Amino acid sequence: MTTQTLRRRSSSRPIKPAVKREEDGSRILRSQPQPARVAQKKDATLRIIPLGGMEEVGRNMTVFEYGRDIVILDMGIQFPEEDMPGIDYIIPNINYLKGKEKNIRAIIFSHGHLDHIGAAPILLEKLGYPPIIGRDLTLAFVKKRLEDYQANSAKKLKTISIKSVSDRFSLGKFNIGFFEVEHSIMDAVGVIINSPCGTIVHPGDWTMEKDPESGRLLTYEYLAKLPSPKILMLESLGATDFRTETVSEKEMYENLERLIWEAPGRVIIGTFSSQIKRIGRLLEYAEKIGKKVALDGYSMKMNVEIAKQLGYIKIARGALISVSEIHKHPDNKVIVICTGAQGEGNAVLSRIISDNHKYIKIQKNDTIIFSSSVIPGNERTIQRLKDSLYRKCDNVVHTEVMDVHTSGHSNAQNIKEIIKQIHPDFFLPVYANHYFLKEATKLAVEIGMPKDRIFVLDNGSIIEFDKNGEVKILSKKVDTSYVFVDGLGIGDVGQVVLRDRQAMAQDGMFVIIVTVDSQTGEVRNSPDIISRGFIYMRESKELLYQVRERVKEIVRRAAGHQAPINHDLIKDNIRDKIGQFLYTKTERRPMVLPVVIEV
Amino acid sequence: MTTQTLRRRSSSRPIKPAVKREEDGSRILRSQPQPARVAQKKDATLRIIPLGGMEEVGRNMTVFEYGRDIVILDMGIQFPEEDMPGIDYIIPNINYLKGKEKNIRAIIFSHGHLDHIGAAPILLEKLGYPPIIGRDLTLAFVKKRLEDYQANSAKKLKTISIKSVSDRFSLGKFNIGFFEVEHSIMDAVGVIINSPCGTIVHPGDWTMEKDPESGRLLTYEYLAKLPSPKILMLESLGATDFRTETVSEKEMYENLERLIWEAPGRVIIGTFSSQIKRIGRLLEYAEKIGKKVALDGYSMKMNVEIAKQLGYIKIARGALISVSEIHKHPDNKVIVICTGAQGEGNAVLSRIISDNHKYIKIQKNDTIIFSSSVIPGNERTIQRLKDSLYRKCDNVVHTEVMDVHTSGHSNAQNIKEIIKQIHPDFFLPVYANHYFLKEATKLAVEIGMPKDRIFVLDNGSIIEFDKNGEVKILSKKVDTSYVFVDGLGIGDVGQVVLRDRQAMAQDGMFVIIVTVDSQTGEVRNSPDIISRGFIYMRESKELLYQVRERVKEIVRRAAGHQAPINHDLIKDNIRDKIGQFLYTKTERRPMVLPVVIEV
Repeated sequence: MTTQTLRRRSSSRPIKPAVKREEDGSRILRSQPQPARVAQKKDATLRIIPLGGMEEVGRNMTVFEYGRDIVILDMGIQFPEEDMPGIDYIIPNINYLKGKEKNIRAIIFSHGHLDHIGAAPILLEKLGYPPIIGRDLTLAFVKKRLEDYQANSAKKLKTISIKSVSDRFSLGKFNIGFFEVEHSIMDAVGVIINSPCGTIVHPGDWTMEKDPESGRLLTYEYLAKLPSPKILMLESLGATDFRTETVSEKEMYENLERLIWEAPGRVIIGTFSSQIKRIGRLLEYAEKIGKKVALDGYSMKMNVEIAKQLGYIKIARGALISVSEIHKHPDNKVIVICTGAQGEGNAVLSRIISDNHKYIKIQKNDTIIFSSSVIPGNERTIQRLKDSLYRKCDNVVHTEVMDVHTSGHSNAQNIKEIIKQIHPDFFLPVYANHYFLKEATKLAVEIGMPKDRIFVLDNGSIIEFDKNGEVKILSKKVDTSYVFVDGLGIGDVGQVVLRDRQAMAQDGMFVIIVTVDSQTGEVRNSPDIISRGFIYMRESKELLYQVRERVKEIVRRAAGHQAPINHDLIKDNIRDKIGQFLYTKTERRPMVLPVVIEV
Repeated sequence: MTTQTLRRRSSSRPIKPAVKREEDGSRILRSQPQPARVAQKKDATLRIIPLGGMEEVGRNMTVFEYGRDIVILDMGIQFPEEDMPGIDYIIPNINYLKGKEKNIRAIIFSHGHLDHIGAAPILLEKLGYPPIIGRDLTLAFVKKRLEDYQANSAKKLKTISIKSVSDRFSLGKFNIGFFEVEHSIMDAVGVIINSPCGTIVHPGDWTMEKDPESGRLLTYEYLAKLPSPKILMLESLGATDFRTETVSEKEMYENLERLIWEAPGRVIIGTFSSQIKRIGRLLEYAEKIGKKVALDGYSMKMNVEIAKQLGYIKIARGALISVSEIHKHPDNKVIVICTGAQGEGNAVLSRIISDNHKYIKIQKNDTIIFSSSVIPGNERTIQRLKDSLYRKCDNVVHTEVMDVHTSGHSNAQNIKEIIKQIHPDFFLPVYANHYFLKEATKLAVEIGMPKDRIFVLDNGSIIEFDKNGEVKILSKKVDTSYVFVDGLGIGDVGQVVLRDRQAMAQDGMFVIIVTVDSQTGEVRNSPDIISRGFIYMRESKELLYQVRERVKEIVRRAAGHQAPINHDLIKDNIRDKIGQFLYTKTERRPMVLPVVIEV
């Protein structure tokens, strides 16, 4: 039973929490008394502001605000769309929180997937490292992410571990509780955020699937007893999944185990690096039947190491071997579990397939299993990956041909079921593309939820609940424009840079450098042309000759052999006329960039 | 009963066909006697050479060669992959046919989809317009495609129409026959290519689905009686579709009709422009219930016009209205059928959604139906399209929520069934990604086909059947490297140009222009920098200053204040050192392009 009392720092720093363990083992976390603060206004409202996750998958982050207390759920990244070339990822825009840093009581992380924790290194730093709350594995993943981003930054974290779902935290006027959920990563947790104006129930990402051991469904009826009004914020990715039969974890493990058992040679399993539970189960099974497991992929090895240190998975001595040692074992005693099943260029599976892996060359009798789903946008890449694999190997298994993966997300039936069980007063579908959210509202209506109690928010919407049970969506939204991360730059790549990248990707660029004598206004030498991505220059000499002649003519007319020459006029003319000329000849529109140098 | 006798032209031109109608109505097409030709060698073999369609969907084109006779099936285009920015489409590489043009007896088109006819304008011209064979609608689509590509080019076509599946053509040593197939476009036809070394059965794209009127399945048992050895070349896109229940055309039409009947306002249906049959059916239904139909999208309007002229669909007077007139009718009497359900930027549906359509603004009570499948690679775009639609409209229907589309392709069950019925001696799965072809071989093996009689070819593979029933795949392949079409250029964009486009899309480009005094070797003025797609220049003045200083230093050291200056050394140094500097500062690698101008 420990009580940490932390001194309050300057007002720009967050208020550090006091944690007190109650007699039933649950803990209470209170902000220090804040004498300088104006008393909470009586008519404060509960505001819910999703900064991301309402229009896309990823970039999940929601602000809960009551008076001067702010609690935040998740800080995820979004992967770039096709029209965002070169962008590494997108983080939530936190302009709304500027000036409110001191109100932030804590960030809660529902689980350790990147679309929930990925932006933590950048955003926590910007917000002055407010306390973070999560289960141990989740917190360990957040720490690792910080360290990978910047060495020694994790020591700035103030972490509060959820030891049990019965833990309770008091954060300003908010009371925080938890409940068990099932998802495709260990330590996912459902969050209850109680405020004077309503109680939010938020499972994070969730599935209702059968417990693989007991064969039971998780139930949530007990949440129906939470204080009213209950506001259910529900991840609704499965809103259009109308299958009545979905794959159970049990069936999936049976398939995987049979494949491993029957494999004539090595088994290579590609999966997500966060699939700790699955990796743990496969390690156990391998141990049981006397096969060795090699893990490959930085993130996977790190995640397993973290899970092992925290005691989440047990690895028997000698069960794990290094991928550099697999040749020392008979092929049919070797299992490789690796990353790259999405076709990521540098990941292990891609390197294996393209013969760029130091230790693994695919053999005809390998069994290669894609124990993963296809993230939208990766379809074509994964098709090509499969094509290459099928060429090199006779036993390629993926979800199209066998159930070797479960998604960790609920289907339409589950969504209806959880709504029935929790019986919320308000329903806010979240954490998916807009159209899934709309489809989820239809499911809720089908089971009797009144339409006027369902709200589909946008990123940046502000929904306000007052003490009288009134609810409204404000007409003004907060800024949630994209913040792109590209290399070391955060937010420095904007629409202009992106548009240029797209344009150059389409038809390339065409730089024309013309040297003009400042005395006479005459072109000196032949104009230089640098072009990339437009045409193959060596085979286009005639076209380039014609361009040079035209450029000289343009300068001649514009400069009129007189100084001072009109730079802008020459440049505009080159841009327009050469652009038009190139289009006529090629039907392509390279970006034409004129440079006039006066000597 | 007509007999056309066509004179033979110069040897570089194809031999024109003689068409003779037999008494049973079938026609025989014979090459003119060719006295100058060396007699066919007795040991000629049948060669099958797929130039495309074995490693991807699209670019379908197969060469059948026996001695000096060549028959070709299909000339399709492939749409570009993500790593081919700016490319319009890819056409089959016909290097193998160079010098063999005079041997080409005919091109047969199985049906009018672009992945089967799209490359015709370019390839027919290159091959000197050999005769083309197809059903009327297919031929009309080929003609249209030629005219769109180049006005007045269609008159160069020598077309031979398949009037009935009992038509027979004799093309050199090949005898060509046909059989009925079902596909998602009218006038699809299965092709039988008989040669002295084997009989190829090729349904083109096909499905075995129930005839919507009679409820019967198409059967192919009668094809089992064709002369041996029978070589089944089977489009196998559905090889991993293990659903036992697929949507029938009947159910789809029932759903579409119910939606149209119940629609509170306008109905907007997005579908493929080639869905003539579906459009025809919807026109009939609209007429029956007193609604008006407006078509929108150039290709769709043209296709419907062609089909109407040929009598394939009947359109009652007044049933069709112009999209500019829809406002003259009550909303619930209007149906718009349009293109763009794949999210193509310029297509009608995209323009409607982005409020760029002249006559259609989406209304809340519109019913918008995606009667189409998702072409792999378009998933994200279509998700965004749906998101936008769901925002503007309460009734959006797509295949995730209702069966409003049938694919026109068979599933795994059908593949097994057709193999059983035709009972081929050899099985060659075709017209799909490699991994589907491999999966199709598994299906064939499951129903007892010997493994050594199944061949999965690559693009460019040569498989040879001789008179003794021996078969081999030659070790050498023919050239099937990509031929990219970009604007007016055919094949002028190669890997170099593409790589540059990709590089600039990732991190942009950075041109440094340094003017050096040829007398002194000194830098004149400040170096010019032009950068696009890298950083936002206006906010990076400090970085640019540092670059300029470094460039000056590089020139100073390399030139050593002496003439003649070493251009290459300066350029190499700028490229390397500035590239490295920019990476250190930004972790981005723009394409650095140095220009040294001597004055």
